[in-house]
Amino acid sequence: MTALLLKNVRPMGVDATDILILDGRFADAGESIPAGIETIDGDGALMLPGLVEAHTHLDKNLIGMPWWRNQNGPHRSDRIETDRREKKRLGIDPARQSARQAVQTLALGVTAIRSHVDVDTEIGTASIAGVMATREAYRDMVDIQIVAFPQSGMLIREGTVALMEEALRMGADIVGGLDPAEIDRDPVRHLDVIFGMADRFGKPVDIHLHELGELGAFSMELIIERTRALGLQGRVLISHAYCLGMIEPARHDSLAAGLAEAGIAVMTAGPAGFPAPRIKRLHELGVLVCGGCDGPRGTWSPYGRGDMLERAALIGQRNGFSRDEDLEFALEACTTLGARALGLPDYGLGSGCKADLVLVDAETAAEAVADVPIRRLVVKSGRVVARDGAPVGVSAP
Amino acid sequence: MTALLLKNVRPMGVDATDILILDGRFADAGESIPAGIETIDGDGALMLPGLVEAHTHLDKNLIGMPWWRNQNGPHRSDRIETDRREKKRLGIDPARQSARQAVQTLALGVTAIRSHVDVDTEIGTASIAGVMATREAYRDMVDIQIVAFPQSGMLIREGTVALMEEALRMGADIVGGLDPAEIDRDPVRHLDVIFGMADRFGKPVDIHLHELGELGAFSMELIIERTRALGLQGRVLISHAYCLGMIEPARHDSLAAGLAEAGIAVMTAGPAGFPAPRIKRLHELGVLVCGGCDGPRGTWSPYGRGDMLERAALIGQRNGFSRDEDLEFALEACTTLGARALGLPDYGLGSGCKADLVLVDAETAAEAVADVPIRRLVVKSGRVVARDGAPVGVSAP
Repeated sequence: MTALLLKNVRPMGVDATDILILDGRFADAGESIPAGIETIDGDGALMLPGLVEAHTHLDKNLIGMPWWRNQNGPHRSDRIETDRREKKRLGIDPARQSARQAVQTLALGVTAIRSHVDVDTEIGTASIAGVMATREAYRDMVDIQIVAFPQSGMLIREGTVALMEEALRMGADIVGGLDPAEIDRDPVRHLDVIFGMADRFGKPVDIHLHELGELGAFSMELIIERTRALGLQGRVLISHAYCLGMIEPARHDSLAAGLAEAGIAVMTAGPAGFPAPRIKRLHELGVLVCGGCDGPRGTWSPYGRGDMLERAALIGQRNGFSRDEDLEFALEACTTLGARALGLPDYGLGSGCKADLVLVDAETAAEAVADVPIRRLVVKSGRVVARDGAPVGVSAP
Repeated sequence: MTALLLKNVRPMGVDATDILILDGRFADAGESIPAGIETIDGDGALMLPGLVEAHTHLDKNLIGMPWWRNQNGPHRSDRIETDRREKKRLGIDPARQSARQAVQTLALGVTAIRSHVDVDTEIGTASIAGVMATREAYRDMVDIQIVAFPQSGMLIREGTVALMEEALRMGADIVGGLDPAEIDRDPVRHLDVIFGMADRFGKPVDIHLHELGELGAFSMELIIERTRALGLQGRVLISHAYCLGMIEPARHDSLAAGLAEAGIAVMTAGPAGFPAPRIKRLHELGVLVCGGCDGPRGTWSPYGRGDMLERAALIGQRNGFSRDEDLEFALEACTTLGARALGLPDYGLGSGCKADLVLVDAETAAEAVADVPIRRLVVKSGRVVARDGAPVGVSAP
């Protein structure tokens, strides 16, 4: 039986206490402490639950690779082309790169990841296989969910649907989708296909929806209709949902009510350069919201390291948050609410939960969001996996 | 004569070279290297010019103070009230806090700062005196410009104008202004008073303009008219200029032409939660743009450390930049263009310029913006002032 005692830590900023972890889980308050177990002095540090990355692309970052000069054109289609071309040209290996990102973000306290992974008629399911290899190799370090993601379009590229089905049979967890009108040019058929697939395979759905204004809102209505019709409440997530940051307030609230009723969650990266869902209003209206970094250092975007604590700060700033309670809510979107949106079992700091946690030097959760301090300690299922921002006992190729 | 040799550094990413600094300035290429001078191996690091903070509030941050629980109301007026109250209640000492921020940001490579400093009928000119003390004490470490800033309003608080004049006589460098319509409720008279003061004292002007849409655009027109009438071209800066992120494209471009012709610069923090000027379009239209962090960790906003390299990344993201040339432009706004907007003499990496520089581990300037690496070395006027993110030979109270 593995055991760990964290002395003098403050869970979510409450009074300092000692935390006993037995067999990878938080022990009950009354549990007696086994003699001679590993003990770490937390020195009054703030203890947060493991950070949850609800949206990234593990298969195609450029971490640890030479700097790539970005000369992308302005359209999403330019980036899709560049992405497919450079993956081959640069030899972006999905197994290696996913391992690098997973280890890098583990040292930043990210203990669970949902990754979209490209499936297309050029790369086939090779990226799925690569990220599955990482998932297996690092299974004790980080929980990885894999979305079979038709990045290059699905209906517009014959054969993609069959490849997505193959990905699901291989072990992908979730059916992905992408801008049903803007990319696939046929919102109804795109959504019918992916919801049909989810229904047949018994899998959840996660759809990239960048479509703006009323076009995005219409796609969202179609998603709500299909979620209800197929009884997929609680198993559908819309990623980005830019349109919610643009439409009229009354229309927004009515659409949000539809999302809440259908149990559809919304993921945001708090994008500074795009319209963004207002997470507090959505939460008030009963919509489950969560946060993700999207891809760090890649051909899509050059920014960042995949730090979900920094992401909470960016989401906070994008939403105009300055009050402590709002910063705490931004952090919730990157922890507890993210875990709920991803359906992670036994998540949290309560007894019986999986002991995934992060220690930082901060008085309160709000200060942790505002300052983005170094992660002093990261624990995954009761095992120390990082100290002072660097991985411990785990490395990437 | 002080002398320093930096070996094996890459100025702005060009081929590695050795850089000789004599008497605080970059030496000519042909200059012979004095025997036995201090030599630092740059190990191929990227060399950037000193970062320029074009907009902050040195007098009222909370750096090094206990975490302050932000419960501000939603309006700017709520924050102004809170600010004035908490300055007294918490004992926010302007000399101490300005020194703390200056030293903290020096370690991040910021070698020049323009700070707005509050002048009001409660605090009088005490904050001006405090920041002036820091300016004097740290004069060899960082260049500080002081704006006499009527944070609580000017016309609406009898006696403020006389205090601003007192501040200018004491040694403030610039006449400040604030939302002439929204706060002072009389845009024409507010601007007449501050431009009159600038004219009489022979000082530049720097106006906070948060006013939205056409209201802000109207205030901007009034600023352009007064700048031209008084011959203040090249000596007026508009801070924030949110309205430029909201108005119709044709109106935007016409207003930008007016700004360009009147030689009025625009400062942006790239605010994720507010409308923001599009700096590339403004630059194309001939408007001088620059970047600033605004206040780190304070009662206005809890975020950040005043890092101008991170700010370049935030400005880049706010402007939707992903191409390398655009990231480089965001960095320019926080270096060269900032220096121009602030009228800093002898700024840059050319021979004869003041040797203010930063070394970072990055292949290119774009990578430095995307990754925000630790500052390996900071040099101010030829003297090493920080290494590996920590100040050297300089500390704050």
